[in-house]
Amino acid sequence: MQLTKNNLQEKQQQIYDAIVIGGGAGGLSAGIYLQRYLLNSLIIDKGKARSFWMQELHNYLGLPADTPGRVLLQQGKKHYDSLNGDFLNGFVEEVIDEGETFAVRVKVGRQNSIEAVFRSKYLIAASGIIDYLPPLDDMRNVYEYAGYNLHVCMVCDGYEMTNKQCGFFAGSEAAIAEMVFNLSWFTPYITVFTHGAFTVSDSLKAKLREHGYPLIETPIKQFRGEHHRMTGVELIDGSIVELETGLISMGSRYHNTYLKGIGLEMKGGNLVTDNMCRTSHPRILAIGDLKVGLNQVIIAAGDGALAATAIWREIRRAVGAKPWVENLPAVTNG
Amino acid sequence: MQLTKNNLQEKQQQIYDAIVIGGGAGGLSAGIYLQRYLLNSLIIDKGKARSFWMQELHNYLGLPADTPGRVLLQQGKKHYDSLNGDFLNGFVEEVIDEGETFAVRVKVGRQNSIEAVFRSKYLIAASGIIDYLPPLDDMRNVYEYAGYNLHVCMVCDGYEMTNKQCGFFAGSEAAIAEMVFNLSWFTPYITVFTHGAFTVSDSLKAKLREHGYPLIETPIKQFRGEHHRMTGVELIDGSIVELETGLISMGSRYHNTYLKGIGLEMKGGNLVTDNMCRTSHPRILAIGDLKVGLNQVIIAAGDGALAATAIWREIRRAVGAKPWVENLPAVTNG
Repeated sequence: MQLTKNNLQEKQQQIYDAIVIGGGAGGLSAGIYLQRYLLNSLIIDKGKARSFWMQELHNYLGLPADTPGRVLLQQGKKHYDSLNGDFLNGFVEEVIDEGETFAVRVKVGRQNSIEAVFRSKYLIAASGIIDYLPPLDDMRNVYEYAGYNLHVCMVCDGYEMTNKQCGFFAGSEAAIAEMVFNLSWFTPYITVFTHGAFTVSDSLKAKLREHGYPLIETPIKQFRGEHHRMTGVELIDGSIVELETGLISMGSRYHNTYLKGIGLEMKGGNLVTDNMCRTSHPRILAIGDLKVGLNQVIIAAGDGALAATAIWREIRRAVGAKPWVENLPAVTNG
Repeated sequence: MQLTKNNLQEKQQQIYDAIVIGGGAGGLSAGIYLQRYLLNSLIIDKGKARSFWMQELHNYLGLPADTPGRVLLQQGKKHYDSLNGDFLNGFVEEVIDEGETFAVRVKVGRQNSIEAVFRSKYLIAASGIIDYLPPLDDMRNVYEYAGYNLHVCMVCDGYEMTNKQCGFFAGSEAAIAEMVFNLSWFTPYITVFTHGAFTVSDSLKAKLREHGYPLIETPIKQFRGEHHRMTGVELIDGSIVELETGLISMGSRYHNTYLKGIGLEMKGGNLVTDNMCRTSHPRILAIGDLKVGLNQVIIAAGDGALAATAIWREIRRAVGAKPWVENLPAVTNG
């Protein structure tokens, strides 16, 4: 059921089998599996999963290539609801390991918010990442195009950039060094923008020049275009660079601060997991973009199945086999 | 494009980046990713993927819970076709490792079949498994219910069996020992059938008795029911056992004989892979039910993304970055 400020009192008395933090593709898939394993689960979602921003999911098996990410999420939510899973819109502030259980402290409501604490045996961290976007004065100008033809994921949308005039909007020298030459697989017509936010070393400048990729360090005033179709960039000096597509590579914010107190094994910014999505804590699993691996919706959905199954196996073993407690079935002559 | 006996001549001259053996959920997802990475791929499918038999996919994020497996496969095929991937209906008889390439020998056509040989740099084994079914005299009687309420996968359909009178159709003593007590998580009303095909040890008999699960060793004459809804079993002695659902656990046939000559690392009947679905051969990847792991459609689909990405990364690195070979873009005053 959908939990609200008005009905979450009794839910704070019970112990869930698993609390899933994050209601994106990974979290919803985990919730569907958990409920189908007859476990009781709570998904806590702060809203706006990364896939929510995707206008077209081009590579998700089973869905037409123009399916918006939010349609996938809506369908997943409906599916989870039909299995009677609990769902709460709220922001997880902290997770405390109490030994047998976790206490999950949540802020519910944006205005007149209240604090609630839920408990579970297992935790699935599925709260994902969100991409940093170019910090322009008018962010509405960025949102106008981000997720349309101004992309944030080369693996997801490289195909759509094929042989197009592409702006590469970098957040650091490392972003340029790691991504631009890979991006050239899809298109060599790359113009690199630093927005004046950092300096580029002479050696990287030489490498960009050698490949013929212009480097523009003048800050960006705004993106140009209409109807969500970005057609170029206007710089603060008034000059215009025409583009057909863009890739933003300014890093990501990981939604995992609630785990800070627990001290899980990390690699880079990602949680290290085994082949069943188990972290270094025996009762915390991590799925989707938070963990080491590819940030793809279909993989996050598969992760959800793995994590839920790992939890089910442990709980099932602890409970043991159930005997047939009624009469034996009728065997009659036909 | 769809290859047929009539147009596959020229395709035998080229070298594909990857040949995918199997056009089920894993293979189609891999194909979609490969084509979107601008690689050229060929999927060779013998037909009748395991998911093809599923009447309702209850646990695939993004699809309504009553979606037939064949609808997922049709959508995936349409998606792959839209990306101009090559697809051939045929049976792979052998894969020969030629060093830089693989030669894949295929039998095309059931009547007046011809032999064709295709070559690729990489191979994705995605040919899956098929479940053994109870070998009754009239197999049409089995097909009438298999995939409806006579299931083959507890993880997929345990939820649908909850608290129902369930027949467990075992292929071996090990199948009983490994599965029945787990199945009791969903329902304890389990009747075990051996179909008279093997003997059950006294210790397992005692354990079944202790749990109250009847053991029926008399061979089965036929399943009873109508409109694809199995309602029980008639034994060869004329007695009838009423049931509401069933789980078949008679093992699976692995569609991997074409790999026999190569000698990949196995565990049980499954191929061992790393976190990107790479087998012990550097240019062969394995996805879905052939590899170690859970046999779930959503996981196979995620595997496809991983395997395709592993291949793309290697090819991309080998090719290197592409320079901008045309004039620099116009930077004009706005």
